[in-house]
Amino acid sequence: MTAYSELMSFQRETEALAQIAGRLGWDQETVMPAGGADQRGEEMAAIESVLHARRTDPRLADWLAKAKAPDAVGNRALDLISRTYLRTARVPAKLAAEIARQTSVAQHIWAEARAKNDVAHFLPTLEKNVALIREKGQALADGGDAYDALIEDYEPGASAADLAAMFDAMRPRLVALRAAVLGASYQPAALDHSFAQDGQLALSRELADAFAYDWSRGRLDLAVHPFSSGSGNDVRITTRVAERDPFNCLYSTIHEVGHACYELGIDQTYLLTPLGQGVSMGVHESQSRIYENQLGRSRALTGWLFGRMKETFGAFGIDDPDAFYATVNKVHKGYIRTEADEVQYNLHIMLRFDLERDLIAGRLTVADLEEAWNARFKADFGYAVDKPSNGVLQDVHWSGGLFGYFPTYSLGNLYAGCLHQALRAAVPGLDASLAKGDARPATDWLLANLQRHGGLRTPRETIAHACGFEPSAEPLLDYLEEKFRAIYRL
Amino acid sequence: MTAYSELMSFQRETEALAQIAGRLGWDQETVMPAGGADQRGEEMAAIESVLHARRTDPRLADWLAKAKAPDAVGNRALDLISRTYLRTARVPAKLAAEIARQTSVAQHIWAEARAKNDVAHFLPTLEKNVALIREKGQALADGGDAYDALIEDYEPGASAADLAAMFDAMRPRLVALRAAVLGASYQPAALDHSFAQDGQLALSRELADAFAYDWSRGRLDLAVHPFSSGSGNDVRITTRVAERDPFNCLYSTIHEVGHACYELGIDQTYLLTPLGQGVSMGVHESQSRIYENQLGRSRALTGWLFGRMKETFGAFGIDDPDAFYATVNKVHKGYIRTEADEVQYNLHIMLRFDLERDLIAGRLTVADLEEAWNARFKADFGYAVDKPSNGVLQDVHWSGGLFGYFPTYSLGNLYAGCLHQALRAAVPGLDASLAKGDARPATDWLLANLQRHGGLRTPRETIAHACGFEPSAEPLLDYLEEKFRAIYRL
Repeated sequence: MTAYSELMSFQRETEALAQIAGRLGWDQETVMPAGGADQRGEEMAAIESVLHARRTDPRLADWLAKAKAPDAVGNRALDLISRTYLRTARVPAKLAAEIARQTSVAQHIWAEARAKNDVAHFLPTLEKNVALIREKGQALADGGDAYDALIEDYEPGASAADLAAMFDAMRPRLVALRAAVLGASYQPAALDHSFAQDGQLALSRELADAFAYDWSRGRLDLAVHPFSSGSGNDVRITTRVAERDPFNCLYSTIHEVGHACYELGIDQTYLLTPLGQGVSMGVHESQSRIYENQLGRSRALTGWLFGRMKETFGAFGIDDPDAFYATVNKVHKGYIRTEADEVQYNLHIMLRFDLERDLIAGRLTVADLEEAWNARFKADFGYAVDKPSNGVLQDVHWSGGLFGYFPTYSLGNLYAGCLHQALRAAVPGLDASLAKGDARPATDWLLANLQRHGGLRTPRETIAHACGFEPSAEPLLDYLEEKFRAIYRL
Repeated sequence: MTAYSELMSFQRETEALAQIAGRLGWDQETVMPAGGADQRGEEMAAIESVLHARRTDPRLADWLAKAKAPDAVGNRALDLISRTYLRTARVPAKLAAEIARQTSVAQHIWAEARAKNDVAHFLPTLEKNVALIREKGQALADGGDAYDALIEDYEPGASAADLAAMFDAMRPRLVALRAAVLGASYQPAALDHSFAQDGQLALSRELADAFAYDWSRGRLDLAVHPFSSGSGNDVRITTRVAERDPFNCLYSTIHEVGHACYELGIDQTYLLTPLGQGVSMGVHESQSRIYENQLGRSRALTGWLFGRMKETFGAFGIDDPDAFYATVNKVHKGYIRTEADEVQYNLHIMLRFDLERDLIAGRLTVADLEEAWNARFKADFGYAVDKPSNGVLQDVHWSGGLFGYFPTYSLGNLYAGCLHQALRAAVPGLDASLAKGDARPATDWLLANLQRHGGLRTPRETIAHACGFEPSAEPLLDYLEEKFRAIYRL
């Protein structure tokens, strides 16, 4: 065996073990009996420890030094393995273990603080998290910028400066659009009706069909927080049901179908190789978002959905497809990121991005964080945060040590905007299909131009290759302004 | 860290990884999408390879040489780890890999042969299996008896000679009882009715409750072949539904509840140690069988079940609880082990035990196997095998390389007979509870006297400790003769 084939065979086993860890996560969130939780913790720790040992196995350095790839795909695989190996090796084992311990405790304390709306209860813990993650970022950066190095875990190749440039261009237009929309004299009706769980789940399955989810390689279950899980040929999705808010269920399903179709669509020859999964969080989010928003919340598809909802649930107080379209896209005043619409979502993200960047850089102290959050929220949203659980305590991420993750959400939206522009140019008759509940012409285009390539190119190259142009915020902003000005009759 | 604590911490991680392999197996049989099968094969191979590497890790020899256990429980743990280590080390890696490859192919060829009723199609493959497993047995036996060494995988401490002595004593009494029962002038009615799936599953859950299955640490799903899965605090069961044969579903559930309660009942301090799972296949089967047969098929419990079935399904052609009890226990003429009743089941096993023992010893050739099977079947059952799928081709075991496994089924029945005698002496009012659909006085006794001890003692010691006497076939035979003579009015 050559060094290359030895390495690839070792790597394949590692990828298979990583899939197993993912399956355990799925099991835990969907079917595991509650009494199994502690034991599952030990099982997860055991498989993670096996994975860590394999990712830092000393043989990797040797193989990587000697391996000659037979082709460009092989070279990319070597690059990806090498990248993971070097990054894992840079973080001292003691620091990694301390972060694991600390963030596990921190999530618990954060949950207590949020429940009590007591920021002070969380601050010493957050301080420790920030210090440890900063240390990790510095170890990873090896002299470069710590926050950039953290972003690399989620969005390889992205830098805070590039992201900030894009986001800063978006912010004024989004703030203006939000203000215009919420001040408009026409306001869409809100839903005020109860929608039975069975019907919501049946419609979820229809929507998954509409977006060409492959049931022979997946399944749909209920979970507290919707997610998709797995790579290769077993990629499962979950959704949740609130009887007063069917869009939560339906659009969570479409969102997760987007993530799942990306994984399921990757070239089968990349299976269980470093190329065999979505290339970054941002590119992943571009798929979930274009499915959910640009396609799922389009006038064409909502027209079809309106009919199916009437057939499924009977009359529910909205009388025509235009009004339904406006209701689906209604912009609500609110505080919570995860409940935000297309207009406001990115404002929530940019706020977090700027704050966490300053925290890691040491420009903002944890003690000043709440004040900074509240000031920024007031500036962008026009009203004050009413309580910490609606403000600085609302997200789990920082308690879990996730710094550098937030910007990938907005990057995904931005990429979705670019892809949507390219898609519409390439598939002119798309709305006619969407209006019949068939998104396949869109998913086929995404499959052929983006999804099947998996990790072949860098994230930014992946988007540029699919679009035929370099990604920027313009397409998303143009799309949002056109869509919401029309809906709000501005 | 001492050698003992290092070893135990390494072992704990190994046990957790073994649990993960089991969870993947559960997933595969219950919820996995069909398209994930090939990938799952790679995932299973990856975790099995990790487990194999840990079980043969050279550090084990060192730790085992130096480790001092703090108490008797620790000594037993060291014995069990040492035993697994020595056995795994004795089988050359090349032979183990060849057996894995060969038996995987062989199961496929066996399935083809069974479907076509073509023994010749399977014989060359079986020949290879027997040769490889004999070689494995010889490697394990290290000069001793190869078949005894194979039995050790399933029933540590049992020898073929001891088993044969017990079984040979059982055989004439069972042959006689079977003949008497099938020749009796009174024959119980057979069910001839359809029973809806929902009702069967609801009753299955009630039966699991009746036997005190802990739902907070388990769940019930459908699978093609019923099984229980897991150790510790997440032990799941499955059942299946045939609308014309509700006893299949209901008694499969009780059987698997028996297995699951054993695992769930083990002392929590043994969790993820070598003592933290059922000590052998035979002892495991004693739990599933006493739940299913001595308790589940008793006059007292079937009286309650009769009422619940009428309430669930309406009238189904059996009019009183005595007739229902006879129907539940009806002895059918047949060929198939898995469909056999309490009277005939062990005759099926003894036949296989004697034949496989002779195959491994080289006293019987694969070419002569079918003839030997058919002759023995005629002798014990009184009529001829009509086709190979009802005879020598009916079971998957030999194609999968499982030699030495069959006798544990009958040993489990024998142990169940012993435990039932001790249980009845210890819990005199048991029938009054069973008649109300409450088996808890029985399961409490089994929990306290057997289940909680897990792997603390050898299998035979485990039974003797619970019963207060050395196990033998007498209690089972006495119970069967008394029960079936009464049912058949002999």
